[in-house]
Amino acid sequence: MGAKFWLDCGGAMPLKSQYSSDPGNLFVRDVRPLGGDPTDILIAGERIACGPAPAGVPVLDGGGRIVLPGLVEAHTHLDKSLLGLPWYRNEVGPRLIDKIENERTVRRTLPIDPRQQSERQALLSVSHGSTFIRSHVDVDTECGVAGIEGVLATREALADVVDIDLVAFPQSGLLVRPGTVGLLERALRLGAETVGGLDPCAIDRDPKGHVDVVFGLADKFGRGVDIHLHEPGEMGAFSMELIIERTLALGMQGKVMISHAFCLGMPDASVVDPLIAALAEARISIMTTASASRTVPPLKRLVQAGVVVCAGSDGIRDTWGPYGNADMLERAMFVGQRYNLRRDDELALALDVVTTGGARALGLEGYGLTPGCGGDLVLVEAETIAEAVAQRPGRRTVIKRGRVVARDGVAERR
Amino acid sequence: MGAKFWLDCGGAMPLKSQYSSDPGNLFVRDVRPLGGDPTDILIAGERIACGPAPAGVPVLDGGGRIVLPGLVEAHTHLDKSLLGLPWYRNEVGPRLIDKIENERTVRRTLPIDPRQQSERQALLSVSHGSTFIRSHVDVDTECGVAGIEGVLATREALADVVDIDLVAFPQSGLLVRPGTVGLLERALRLGAETVGGLDPCAIDRDPKGHVDVVFGLADKFGRGVDIHLHEPGEMGAFSMELIIERTLALGMQGKVMISHAFCLGMPDASVVDPLIAALAEARISIMTTASASRTVPPLKRLVQAGVVVCAGSDGIRDTWGPYGNADMLERAMFVGQRYNLRRDDELALALDVVTTGGARALGLEGYGLTPGCGGDLVLVEAETIAEAVAQRPGRRTVIKRGRVVARDGVAERR
Repeated sequence: MGAKFWLDCGGAMPLKSQYSSDPGNLFVRDVRPLGGDPTDILIAGERIACGPAPAGVPVLDGGGRIVLPGLVEAHTHLDKSLLGLPWYRNEVGPRLIDKIENERTVRRTLPIDPRQQSERQALLSVSHGSTFIRSHVDVDTECGVAGIEGVLATREALADVVDIDLVAFPQSGLLVRPGTVGLLERALRLGAETVGGLDPCAIDRDPKGHVDVVFGLADKFGRGVDIHLHEPGEMGAFSMELIIERTLALGMQGKVMISHAFCLGMPDASVVDPLIAALAEARISIMTTASASRTVPPLKRLVQAGVVVCAGSDGIRDTWGPYGNADMLERAMFVGQRYNLRRDDELALALDVVTTGGARALGLEGYGLTPGCGGDLVLVEAETIAEAVAQRPGRRTVIKRGRVVARDGVAERR
Repeated sequence: MGAKFWLDCGGAMPLKSQYSSDPGNLFVRDVRPLGGDPTDILIAGERIACGPAPAGVPVLDGGGRIVLPGLVEAHTHLDKSLLGLPWYRNEVGPRLIDKIENERTVRRTLPIDPRQQSERQALLSVSHGSTFIRSHVDVDTECGVAGIEGVLATREALADVVDIDLVAFPQSGLLVRPGTVGLLERALRLGAETVGGLDPCAIDRDPKGHVDVVFGLADKFGRGVDIHLHEPGEMGAFSMELIIERTLALGMQGKVMISHAFCLGMPDASVVDPLIAALAEARISIMTTASASRTVPPLKRLVQAGVVVCAGSDGIRDTWGPYGNADMLERAMFVGQRYNLRRDDELALALDVVTTGGARALGLEGYGLTPGCGGDLVLVEAETIAEAVAQRPGRRTVIKRGRVVARDGVAERR
């Protein structure tokens, strides 16, 4: 990819306002797209355009940095981070249900305001280069839809800074806690885009019932589905089959994501290979955190089979665990380390997961660095893509729809 | 641990120069030992002393930061980092032998000067808080002992900044490459402390021959042993048995380390449990990088059995792979993530691995924060130990034998 690439453009571009100094117009000089040759990028009317800098358009000197499309945070929990609060001493038990129940209890006493916490985390994400965030947001019979309302308010407040997509997430279970289904409906009406789900066997104890409700809501509201599937081995494989069956039956190909999917990391290829083929047929995408302590979906086999793989931070410093900084380039490094990616071409795959993989999984339109794409860019001080992933340089500059939203690693409030 | 701790001291302290403003004397105000209550620490004559600040002693304001003992980098390769060189495009094959042979070939053309590269990496380590480094240094029939000479020169140049311990390491094999044994002897005479080894079955193809030579050299020179053992499963377990047998036979308890020890991550407890018991009996320590892509030694079971576990960065940005930043607090985070440590007490264990674990494994004397201990400190801006590990705050201030060697994350050359 070189300088001439940027001249080789054409076709209609939906420009809101062209060649003015309004927000959304920016001329970015001397950047290297995906580590290629230096070039300039014009953003006009919030989209990548072509040609020289017109008079009056603000100029940003890229200083030869690599430019990437905005990073995609495909799975996190904006509503319940403890960022900015006093350190939470974690004494929680080892099981998933321990963490779920502890969180529900702790939330009664800790000042976890979803509006405030989601803004804190979203701005941290932006400072690291994420320009799109999918957030699961707890919906349960104790907090109701307060989390949804808080994150929706943050979405509105940060509308010029980052795009946020909400999954109405029954963290405490769906059928095991009567009243939750109605709350999910309410969350969808309020503006959550996607129907969430969680471990149909292990948590809800009724796999058929769980996936029927989740897909029923998705069908009724015309929404996508994103299910947390921590279940390991054959149990997870069974739940995954139920999800695939409903995706095909309802014609929801391309609208379903399975998050974590630890079961795909089981060693038995006679179970995993048919599942991968079925995921590809149903165009179900897979989200991984590249967990170092769990079995993980086989990245290369999934990609080779045509399954879209994206990545997420999961919880950032919450009652579940102390880790996370919302940096999706660091997440790409974790992908690289987990899958033992060492060659430069392999690290490019890790970057794909947190860029185009996320964009495809979330159905983002106009994602990329070519003319006509949305003007979401990240400038990273690195020699190569591999260095950007393996060394995660800081002090990034981030552009959202042609506006600088973080400069040298610091998010700019608008 | 609180303020009174620091007053409760006594006994003789080997002070070189007390209560003067000479290097090695420092009064560190307002720091929290291991996250405890605020206190002051006096370093007098390079060692931690007690009492108020005498006149003339330089004062460092800790600003309430956590103070840790100097971090211990227990396994790296100072001689062959590519830090500061143009990005190396990695196109190396997947096998261990591919990486070994590629490196030997590449070293003929790349300007990897062991003297320069080891200093670059050592100063990077210091900037993150390591005050002790064990470095394996390649010895083979192509580079001879040039690596040893280079790292020895760096050790001398940085003698006031960081302690460096050298392992004479037959990276390309020992018996498979005739002439290597003589070179190892030369390396030991030059000043390398420890005899290295590598995969007695998988690389050297003669497990008995390999360990006999390694332990023979150790016995002849009165040195310790540190063997890279990547071999998985039963093969690794067999090699480990050979190492344990010789450790006991030669009375080398407490002087042997096994690095990586992936075989201890195999699931079969009927193989692993007796090995752990034997390691404890032979007082052999285990070094882990907490690799995300390999089976890893069972940390908690080892510690419970009394086996000392330490950690290392392994290669930092070299021809083997692009990762690594020499930050041992980040390594503690990798330990936490790999072993799924989430509770605060579990994160304290992760910190132990990169502090007291390393010190015990390497036999460091006077390690710690109590009076009489060497004045090696790291100041970290964090509320708790768990935060220090999980969030790896930057801008650390590092003190070696009472001298500030890095300030706010930047190593100070002396």
